[in-house]
Amino acid sequence: MDDAWDRFGEWAGTLADIGGASALLGWDRETGMPPGGAETRARQLGTLAALHHRELIRADMAGPLEELGADTTLPADRRRQVELMLRARRRAERMPESLVRDLSEATSRCVGVWMDVRPAGDYAAFAEPFRRVVELKRRQARTVWDGDEDYDALLDDYEPGARAADLEPVFADLRRRLTPLVEIGAARPRHPLPERTWPAEAQVALARDLAELLGYDMGCGLVALSAHPFTNSPGHGDVRFTTRVDEANPVGSIMAVLHEAGHALYEQGFPEAFARGPLLDAPSLGAHESQSRFWENHIGRTRAFWERIGPLLRGRFPEAMRGLEPAELHRVAAAVEPSLIRVEADEVTYNLHIALRFELELALIRGDLEVEDLPAEWNARMRDFLGVTPPHDGLGVMQDIHWPEGLFGYFPTYTLGNLYAAQLAEAAETRLGDLEAAVADGRFGEILGFMRERVHRFANLRPTGELMRDATGEALSADALVAHLRRVATA
Amino acid sequence: MDDAWDRFGEWAGTLADIGGASALLGWDRETGMPPGGAETRARQLGTLAALHHRELIRADMAGPLEELGADTTLPADRRRQVELMLRARRRAERMPESLVRDLSEATSRCVGVWMDVRPAGDYAAFAEPFRRVVELKRRQARTVWDGDEDYDALLDDYEPGARAADLEPVFADLRRRLTPLVEIGAARPRHPLPERTWPAEAQVALARDLAELLGYDMGCGLVALSAHPFTNSPGHGDVRFTTRVDEANPVGSIMAVLHEAGHALYEQGFPEAFARGPLLDAPSLGAHESQSRFWENHIGRTRAFWERIGPLLRGRFPEAMRGLEPAELHRVAAAVEPSLIRVEADEVTYNLHIALRFELELALIRGDLEVEDLPAEWNARMRDFLGVTPPHDGLGVMQDIHWPEGLFGYFPTYTLGNLYAAQLAEAAETRLGDLEAAVADGRFGEILGFMRERVHRFANLRPTGELMRDATGEALSADALVAHLRRVATA
Repeated sequence: MDDAWDRFGEWAGTLADIGGASALLGWDRETGMPPGGAETRARQLGTLAALHHRELIRADMAGPLEELGADTTLPADRRRQVELMLRARRRAERMPESLVRDLSEATSRCVGVWMDVRPAGDYAAFAEPFRRVVELKRRQARTVWDGDEDYDALLDDYEPGARAADLEPVFADLRRRLTPLVEIGAARPRHPLPERTWPAEAQVALARDLAELLGYDMGCGLVALSAHPFTNSPGHGDVRFTTRVDEANPVGSIMAVLHEAGHALYEQGFPEAFARGPLLDAPSLGAHESQSRFWENHIGRTRAFWERIGPLLRGRFPEAMRGLEPAELHRVAAAVEPSLIRVEADEVTYNLHIALRFELELALIRGDLEVEDLPAEWNARMRDFLGVTPPHDGLGVMQDIHWPEGLFGYFPTYTLGNLYAAQLAEAAETRLGDLEAAVADGRFGEILGFMRERVHRFANLRPTGELMRDATGEALSADALVAHLRRVATA
Repeated sequence: MDDAWDRFGEWAGTLADIGGASALLGWDRETGMPPGGAETRARQLGTLAALHHRELIRADMAGPLEELGADTTLPADRRRQVELMLRARRRAERMPESLVRDLSEATSRCVGVWMDVRPAGDYAAFAEPFRRVVELKRRQARTVWDGDEDYDALLDDYEPGARAADLEPVFADLRRRLTPLVEIGAARPRHPLPERTWPAEAQVALARDLAELLGYDMGCGLVALSAHPFTNSPGHGDVRFTTRVDEANPVGSIMAVLHEAGHALYEQGFPEAFARGPLLDAPSLGAHESQSRFWENHIGRTRAFWERIGPLLRGRFPEAMRGLEPAELHRVAAAVEPSLIRVEADEVTYNLHIALRFELELALIRGDLEVEDLPAEWNARMRDFLGVTPPHDGLGVMQDIHWPEGLFGYFPTYTLGNLYAAQLAEAAETRLGDLEAAVADGRFGEILGFMRERVHRFANLRPTGELMRDATGEALSADALVAHLRRVATA
């Protein structure tokens, strides 16, 4: 048994190392790589993916895995590791190479067309390669999944254990209760910032200040610039994130920092004992997003937070902050306004953008909606949910890269993150008292301590549903998020 | 045959991709990685090395390699690729795993002891783990090599085709002719720089200016800071280098930039057609070093160069350059002074440091010198060659990390680089006229063009000896280097 466990550990460690190397190649591609390196980098990532696949399905691991799978005396943490690896291995074995190749070609082609025709919103040109992507994703679902709901096969890749049947009532409830809040929030007066310059270098320095203020460990991290902010960990003890800067407005960068630092604080809280194995991960994208959204929305959009960081703001931006109160930046961060574009949406309208995508992609995968009917359905929902209408499909149904990339079952994890974040914030208040008061007092260590104890230290030891039920004391529901957003909209 | 060639290409490409990923992991370790990532990074590099080894010796490549090896109709460039890969594969096959592990353990232990005892120069404590390293390197040589000279097995790893019997007379000649130059050069008056501050950021910005001045393409490169300067390429189209900075003296950083930019210009000149294969490499370390030394010593130590970059210096260091002439910096760059430490040595004495190491390591591997007698032999030669005596062994025989790391046959490639650089400089003058005049006119494009045509474009298509014979029109000899250093010492 120990021999089987040793071989398992070595195998999982090799896979983790290949994954970590791939993560670093991706990090470097976005933060440092010169343009000339792009072609070889794509090949290298392809080679590492192929080596990972080959290692994952290697025949000589069948024996040890069978032995460990049948061992009823295995401690729970080892059982979980074996289950996670068996799940990944079965998925890899069930995906025929021809389908992997077809999907890769179809999504590459669709993304290429999307890049060309999105600016003008030429949906007719987009529909044909996109239909092929939808068709292949439906085939993938039927190939790897034994359940009745094809969509669950795709959802399960990002949110293991989540099912469309469970999400549908939650999204319906959320949509029904959020729609009225949009008008209330949007009716509040606008307070644009005066015209100032916020130097890029000072914004990056502030990113480090803010991350450390929340408890981010720079000895196990790195902060850089990239076009789109992201968090990335090449391995235990090394969790990095990026931010973006806009010299005309620092609020977007600061919110991006809080979001990415939330992801990064989560991974910095993973136990060292889980290094180089399947436990060194979040159990799902929704669980991961719960951490970014918690720091971004429940901490970073409070007025107390902006008052608290006033001295940092004045220190980094002595010119731009002259005569400006931190509360004026807070008003920008907390504004509510229905808009066409998801990535620019405020906290209240954001989940309606996701609800719309969830309904439509579920219908596409079920075969209840044809690709050619998608723009009309998109526009109808935009009107119903948010009261706005895209001038063309480039600012509507074609705005995101995710569908062309074949990411179905992915968008709902954003709203799952918001739901869990709101439930965690309520649980944190039960333990620590009013969160805004804690922020006003600078008790960030206590807030992080709460998350470390309830969420971070488990990493991937437990499935998301179980983890969140114990952390919040509640089943998944829209109540906490709706209550929070009602406060935001009526503030 | 095409099938065998296709499989060969895919195999070589996979190996190149693993090598490129390892290169990036190494680059990041020195330039960005937080301290917390060190342990996992070491494991990742070990895993990639193991995957590379496994791929290199995979059994199912035996057939295609045999087929290609026997094919007399193969074009020369393909034949060269097959030979290079067969050579690497045979070496990997002949190294028993137990010896790889023993060597890894012995050198790790020796480096650890070296770090502890070098500051005090405790050779007695160092000798025991070092004896083990020497013993294992001798065993390695006897295991992988069929020739009579064990040292050639080690030398051949860094300088394929080089043989001790060919190098011995060259080094003896060099030593005999350089020793008298040391006194002449050292007799010149010193001209230390006035005390100024040369800001670190401006030094890094100047590094980019200088690299681009020589013809370095920033669209296919990246310049960063590290403790020890190095050049690194994760793949075709992406050749990076680092520099170091000392705010009290910019000359060391500028010389490091010219050295590393020389390496980087070489690799940026490798043809795109060689990407992801064994031809995308220098044929040897000596060939690679010929490029760094050429730009560093034959361009960068001329007075014309410093006059030429005067405007750049004044632009980047308006304060520090006040009242200072570029020629004063040149005098620092061109000073000659016998010293104890190789990495701080000037151009004239440098090769005597190498000659000493070559003689001693050759004797060690031949069994003509015992480890316990090494310090006495070192000190005797330091006195003979340079007229200086180390106060203790930490500043003498124990100064370099390379021997504890097991790098025997490596030091001579530095002087081979200097020899080839001087021969290439003579050839360049035959073609372009006086080099210093070309520098004075800023004709860097012509100088780079000469190197591109004679050296870079061949990459690893031809063995070093053949490449350099055709590029310089001469066999390897000390004449050009001695003539150059005589001019330097008597300037």
